[in-house]
Amino acid sequence: MKISDLDTPALLVDLDRVEANLHRWEMWCRQRGIRNRPHIKTHKIPELARLQLEYGAVGITCQKLGEAEAMANAGIIDIFLPYNIVGEMKLNRLQALHERVRLRVSADNPTVIAGLAKTAARAGKPLEVMVECDTGMHRAGVPKPADAVELARLIRQQPALRFTGFCTYPWSPEAARFMREAKRLCAQDGIPVTEISGGGTPGMWREEGLEELTEYRAGTFIFNDRIIVASGAATFNDCAATLLLSVVSDAGTSYVTVDGGTKTFSSDLYGQTDYGVVLDDPATTIVRCSEEHGVLQRCGNKPPYRVGEKVRIIPNHACIIFNLHDVAYGVRGDEVVARWNITARGKVQ
Amino acid sequence: MKISDLDTPALLVDLDRVEANLHRWEMWCRQRGIRNRPHIKTHKIPELARLQLEYGAVGITCQKLGEAEAMANAGIIDIFLPYNIVGEMKLNRLQALHERVRLRVSADNPTVIAGLAKTAARAGKPLEVMVECDTGMHRAGVPKPADAVELARLIRQQPALRFTGFCTYPWSPEAARFMREAKRLCAQDGIPVTEISGGGTPGMWREEGLEELTEYRAGTFIFNDRIIVASGAATFNDCAATLLLSVVSDAGTSYVTVDGGTKTFSSDLYGQTDYGVVLDDPATTIVRCSEEHGVLQRCGNKPPYRVGEKVRIIPNHACIIFNLHDVAYGVRGDEVVARWNITARGKVQ
Repeated sequence: MKISDLDTPALLVDLDRVEANLHRWEMWCRQRGIRNRPHIKTHKIPELARLQLEYGAVGITCQKLGEAEAMANAGIIDIFLPYNIVGEMKLNRLQALHERVRLRVSADNPTVIAGLAKTAARAGKPLEVMVECDTGMHRAGVPKPADAVELARLIRQQPALRFTGFCTYPWSPEAARFMREAKRLCAQDGIPVTEISGGGTPGMWREEGLEELTEYRAGTFIFNDRIIVASGAATFNDCAATLLLSVVSDAGTSYVTVDGGTKTFSSDLYGQTDYGVVLDDPATTIVRCSEEHGVLQRCGNKPPYRVGEKVRIIPNHACIIFNLHDVAYGVRGDEVVARWNITARGKVQ
Repeated sequence: MKISDLDTPALLVDLDRVEANLHRWEMWCRQRGIRNRPHIKTHKIPELARLQLEYGAVGITCQKLGEAEAMANAGIIDIFLPYNIVGEMKLNRLQALHERVRLRVSADNPTVIAGLAKTAARAGKPLEVMVECDTGMHRAGVPKPADAVELARLIRQQPALRFTGFCTYPWSPEAARFMREAKRLCAQDGIPVTEISGGGTPGMWREEGLEELTEYRAGTFIFNDRIIVASGAATFNDCAATLLLSVVSDAGTSYVTVDGGTKTFSSDLYGQTDYGVVLDDPATTIVRCSEEHGVLQRCGNKPPYRVGEKVRIIPNHACIIFNLHDVAYGVRGDEVVARWNITARGKVQ
């Protein structure tokens, strides 16, 4: 089957580009002794998680318990869940998950640590816990190295928990300074720190502060997207996820309209002023959109797009796209070579 | 089951408020002789579409062929699809749908009309077609009344098509002027116009220009949301859709973090500077979010939210939320009285 045989909108993954992205990053990590634990929140597809393991990843990262369950159901056995798990219902599910895979979680407060301790005790199997640190993102994590070490002590007081180290997002020079200080305080107290985990695709190629890091969680790098290109961490030629759309309306003015909008590629702007660029024609962009319409500004250099014609769009933010679609297609050149269910999509809990 | 028994994030629908919203609008339409054809793209739930019919709607509106198929599968028999249907694959599906329900579609160009004519001829059953008009939205539709009438003529030349009238979104005083002129041109030519269809919740209570209208397609009004409140078409007390979230992190500073972000309530801002407000505490808002974290700014008047505590959020834009979740819960007061699959979610084609 050819790409041109697919109906639209369709979410495409260029597997040649995916493999190049995975290979380049794994080589970079190996040369620096960093363990690669990619974040599957970007693609949510078990087949792609397994491809990442095949390329050398030590395990995967998930952001939601439901994502981790979906990946465990697909046979993935080593999962880090850097999220505060709160409430009896989720703790019961966490226990079941912990009993069947190698699981590591994070915590940034005593309430969460207490819940994890009870859960791990019930499972009768020690649970690895990292302390999440806020190194600039201001959304979760303890704000100071001394607070992080205090929580490390609290975790170590729980017989069913194993303190593993510290994690943060995104990795940055500030994060490296935070970790250096946290490790110094731990050393003073004789607390062993076996893992320091950072993440984020925009900063993934940065050498500064790397000596503090043992593990990297990158998500978007498997596909890259327009905001990663804007960050300098990839080029348009590294972008593997595109949306195949059809031109449905042409009023003969300066734009044509395609059959996807914010329900197809989200309203994420991330500093861009528009919503996506045409593959192989990056001067032509989606300048406005509503839920099911995208307005494609004509570019002077190209013949105008006609009603019925298909275009491929590189989206601003790949991670959010895979949460909108049920199915993605793997392609090589013009050939469709795979059809995947986005199994962990919509696992909001 | 109580709301407090639900795990989070959970999408809640206050059925008392829904029924009040449906009743108020149906009364308004009946008193003015307007046919109410609500847009189900907002909720995507067959049970709620049936409730709208029960309250007096003449049929429903869908924005995607896949939504219309999902509603037909659930027994809905009168559907308007105001979208250009393009390509053989969709036209084959349209034919199958046309054969089993009363279907009306729209077109804004000759390519689409030609496809519809072939499809209707194959079905051996006349297909109702409206001409979509651009009355200010600039995303689809013919830009001038004379162009609209030219397409009306083209539709009337196709034996398998029935020209019904003109549609636009959103309804506005400009739209009314456009329709008046299009009808005048049709009258000159002896072209009967049986239906003029407008849409949009923000403008739904406007009396100006109503004499041009026969049918109204409102979507968001079933729930209302923050942007509808901002438009003046509803109050916070009319907002029926909320997200139940848990506080998961509290760094002891000016904010706490909840377990939902752009994958739970989207990044739609629509002129707001933040992403949602706490029900019954609208001064407290989600000021920042990433994919799975929402940062809730503390409000001085309330005791601080604690880790594990649940909050209900009125989102900016309800329509986009129901496209992110697989399940929604109907509630009355604190009681959970229904659990619905969001059957038409993700029907991107």
